[in-house]
Amino acid sequence: MENIERPLDLLNSAKGKRVLVETKAKKQIMGILRAFDIHINMVLSDAEERNEEGQVQRKIGDVFIRGDMIVLVAPSP
Amino acid sequence: MENIERPLDLLNSAKGKRVLVETKAKKQIMGILRAFDIHINMVLSDAEERNEEGQVQRKIGDVFIRGDMIVLVAPSP
Amino acid sequence: MENIERPLDLLNSAKGKRVLVETKAKKQIMGILRAFDIHINMVLSDAEERNEEGQVQRKIGDVFIRGDMIVLVAPSP
Amino acid sequence: MENIERPLDLLNSAKGKRVLVETKAKKQIMGILRAFDIHINMVLSDAEERNEEGQVQRKIGDVFIRGDMIVLVAPSP
Amino acid sequence: MENIERPLDLLNSAKGKRVLVETKAKKQIMGILRAFDIHINMVLSDAEERNEEGQVQRKIGDVFIRGDMIVLVAPSP
Amino acid sequence: MENIERPLDLLNSAKGKRVLVETKAKKQIMGILRAFDIHINMVLSDAEERNEEGQVQRKIGDVFIRGDMIVLVAPSP
Amino acid sequence: MENIERPLDLLNSAKGKRVLVETKAKKQIMGILRAFDIHINMVLSDAEERNEEGQVQRKIGDVFIRGDMIVLVAPSP
Repeated sequence: MENIERPLDLLNSAKGKRVLVETKAKKQIMGILRAFDIHINMVLSDAEERNEEGQVQRKIGDVFIRGDMIVLVAPSP
Repeated sequence: MENIERPLDLLNSAKGKRVLVETKAKKQIMGILRAFDIHINMVLSDAEERNEEGQVQRKIGDVFIRGDMIVLVAPSP
Repeated sequence: MENIERPLDLLNSAKGKRVLVETKAKKQIMGILRAFDIHINMVLSDAEERNEEGQVQRKIGDVFIRGDMIVLVAPSP
Repeated sequence: MENIERPLDLLNSAKGKRVLVETKAKKQIMGILRAFDIHINMVLSDAEERNEEGQVQRKIGDVFIRGDMIVLVAPSP
Repeated sequence: MENIERPLDLLNSAKGKRVLVETKAKKQIMGILRAFDIHINMVLSDAEERNEEGQVQRKIGDVFIRGDMIVLVAPSP
Repeated sequence: MENIERPLDLLNSAKGKRVLVETKAKKQIMGILRAFDIHINMVLSDAEERNEEGQVQRKIGDVFIRGDMIVLVAPSP
Repeated sequence: MENIERPLDLLNSAKGKRVLVETKAKKQIMGILRAFDIHINMVLSDAEERNEEGQVQRKIGDVFIRGDMIVLVAPSP
């Protein structure tokens, strides 16, 4: 991991890359991070919903995710 | 996806188009996005409620959805 | 739908008309919208509680509903 | 219903009268509305807890109810 | 009930007296109200936890209760 | 109990002593109170998680607990 | 434990070290604390998800965790 000073630095460095987002509604959404703001609202493209075993449940395409529904965001290695 | 600078840009570009809204109450509402504000409060027209398999459960027509109940918003491709 | 600029415009145009309100507590309340404020606190008159199939469960009469308990508001067509 | 301009007007006109309060904890409390503030914190007197069928479960007497636990308030007709 | 202008007046008049506190975690705590603040944070002494039938489950002694976990506070008659 | 003017006074007087913390996640954590702030964020040392019967489930050591997850804090007598 | 004046001091002293994070979604995430902010938003590296028995469920790598989803943070001894 490159030097991270503030938590949002990780999201900045993940722009344009694939990330896994887990929501309070226990959903996992995988997609390419296009934008986020200080509320952690996010836009992903090529998004798909996955179950807990990592299998694709549904293609979503572009999606706006409300920041206060997000538990964690993990950039793909 | 066109260039998105901020998450709300996706919602702006979806105005007048069909979107899928998922709420904290585990409901899916599909309708045409008419208006939204910075709280992500939204108005849809021609809205209908769907179950998780995507089948229409109920016609709603016009509907105001409170922003802080929204998990995600996906414009139809 | 007439032109809606902001989400609250839909509520404004629904004043004096019958609306369906869904709450976080999974209740549906149908009544005539009398007043609302920027917190989406609302007053309905002639209100009745309905189950998910739309059957009347209980007559409530006048009722104040707290805005942050509201998921959606749908004016009757 | 008399003319209601703002939602809190209904609560004002209900002071000294019997109201039904439903809380997020799925409790129904019936009592005489003595005071409320802008957070919708309330004080009732002669309060009693009721189950969903409207039967008295417990006498409470005077009670302070936190506003952000309240779903709805219905004055007795 | 003496004259109550604002909801917090009830808590003020209950200082030094036994109160029943119900929390969002569905617990009932009975104790002597020692202090509270505008967030409704409270300190009780001689507190004990009770189940829904009113039986003592556990002696707690002095306790700080976070205001935003409180549903209601009822002074003992 | 010594004279308590404000709820946080109880936490102040408990610094360096053993406290029981109950969280919204229904966990009980027992440890020595080292620090807290106005959000009721806390640091305990020698902490251990207990089940509802008071049996030790897990040793945690030092721990930071987020204030808005806390239901109550009871200093050991 | 070294002298801790404020709760965030514990997190500061844990930077670069392994910590266990418990979230409201009942997940346990173990990883190296890289950054946090005043909202308790955090970035961990080499993170892995564990079940309640402490067994590794899934490797996550780098991860951003939203502060208001966090229950507690325990630095490894």
